[in-house]
Amino acid sequence: MKIRVVESVLKANDAVAQENRRVLDDAGVLAVNLMSAPGSGKTTLLEKTISLVGPDKCAVLVGDLQTSRDAERLNAAGAETVQINTGKGCHLSATQVAEGLTGLDLKEKRYVFIENVGNMVCPAGFDLGEHQRAVLLSVPEGDDKVAKYWTLFQLADIILLTKTDLIEILDFNIAAVKTDLEKINTHAPLLEISSRIDETLESWMAWLSQAGVVKKN
Amino acid sequence: MKIRVVESVLKANDAVAQENRRVLDDAGVLAVNLMSAPGSGKTTLLEKTISLVGPDKCAVLVGDLQTSRDAERLNAAGAETVQINTGKGCHLSATQVAEGLTGLDLKEKRYVFIENVGNMVCPAGFDLGEHQRAVLLSVPEGDDKVAKYWTLFQLADIILLTKTDLIEILDFNIAAVKTDLEKINTHAPLLEISSRIDETLESWMAWLSQAGVVKKN
Repeated sequence: MKIRVVESVLKANDAVAQENRRVLDDAGVLAVNLMSAPGSGKTTLLEKTISLVGPDKCAVLVGDLQTSRDAERLNAAGAETVQINTGKGCHLSATQVAEGLTGLDLKEKRYVFIENVGNMVCPAGFDLGEHQRAVLLSVPEGDDKVAKYWTLFQLADIILLTKTDLIEILDFNIAAVKTDLEKINTHAPLLEISSRIDETLESWMAWLSQAGVVKKN
Repeated sequence: MKIRVVESVLKANDAVAQENRRVLDDAGVLAVNLMSAPGSGKTTLLEKTISLVGPDKCAVLVGDLQTSRDAERLNAAGAETVQINTGKGCHLSATQVAEGLTGLDLKEKRYVFIENVGNMVCPAGFDLGEHQRAVLLSVPEGDDKVAKYWTLFQLADIILLTKTDLIEILDFNIAAVKTDLEKINTHAPLLEISSRIDETLESWMAWLSQAGVVKKN
């Protein structure tokens, strides 16, 4: 009984996600779902990304249990932003994203970034209608996290190791991360970045630019 | 319908949690449920705690989706440890803890530490039968997290700000954390600690010693 309820919730979510993807495709916009633990640097990376890509080309949907802190920061960075408060919800759902999308003017946009609720477990189970899934792992979280939170890393299209300016202070072993990834996900590139060091973001910008080949109608 | 299923799951969990608490009380053991984001330093703090309290007095139940990495570390620190793998589960349940407890010899123990799955949302909803709830927030996660993940901080009996050796490097504002806590939780003490600096752990040891007044039968 319980399982059936869960299955039907997932089926309903998937149907809405497909419709979201159709809306995004029609608008010629690339949607990237950013997922990670709390405090791994999603918002800071988006602030930098908005500035580098150009605020007019970016829109953001931000998920959080409560507060509009991230949305305020991203709005200040110049991007059209919608805050989605989930209350006690541990992840964004396709329905919440569908509602968020209705609040955005997608005409001139090239990217919609979806900042998921900070959580390394639950967001992995829910397609939002995104085209690409970016998973962030920050250096302070430790080099043992890929195998522990395998469901998230398994479905990543790109993995961003963030806060790499702290690698030496924190004795972080990138080789250990790569060894774990070899068993879980071999198709997603692993980019080493620090939002404090602009040059490290070039690989991310190049990836975005390449992934973002979506035709404007 | 959905809501009813969820309610009955929670009721069943609470009943098992109460039984866990009875078992722990009978054994004269204090149980502390440690909750936080991934990588905030739960395992490292427990390694230090085991060494300071004395390995023979400690037992640990460790929750993780996959791998036995944390259990191996805590076992190496000398404490009797049971790993609980949750698969895709985003939190420990009272039933998992009940099963874990049957694997422990509580006779000579004074503390059972329950290291929950790294997640700032879902563990907040599930009583495990613990006596005390310790919530960790690590400095690299940022000073804006208390209000964002309010459900977890609201129910904390003690809040541990960890990795405080990074406060200056990361420009972390403790006053902002305190301002948020004033609105959410005024009864839990906030301890500032770093597992790299033993003296900072004195307040935690004092708290444990005071909280741990559970009579051995």
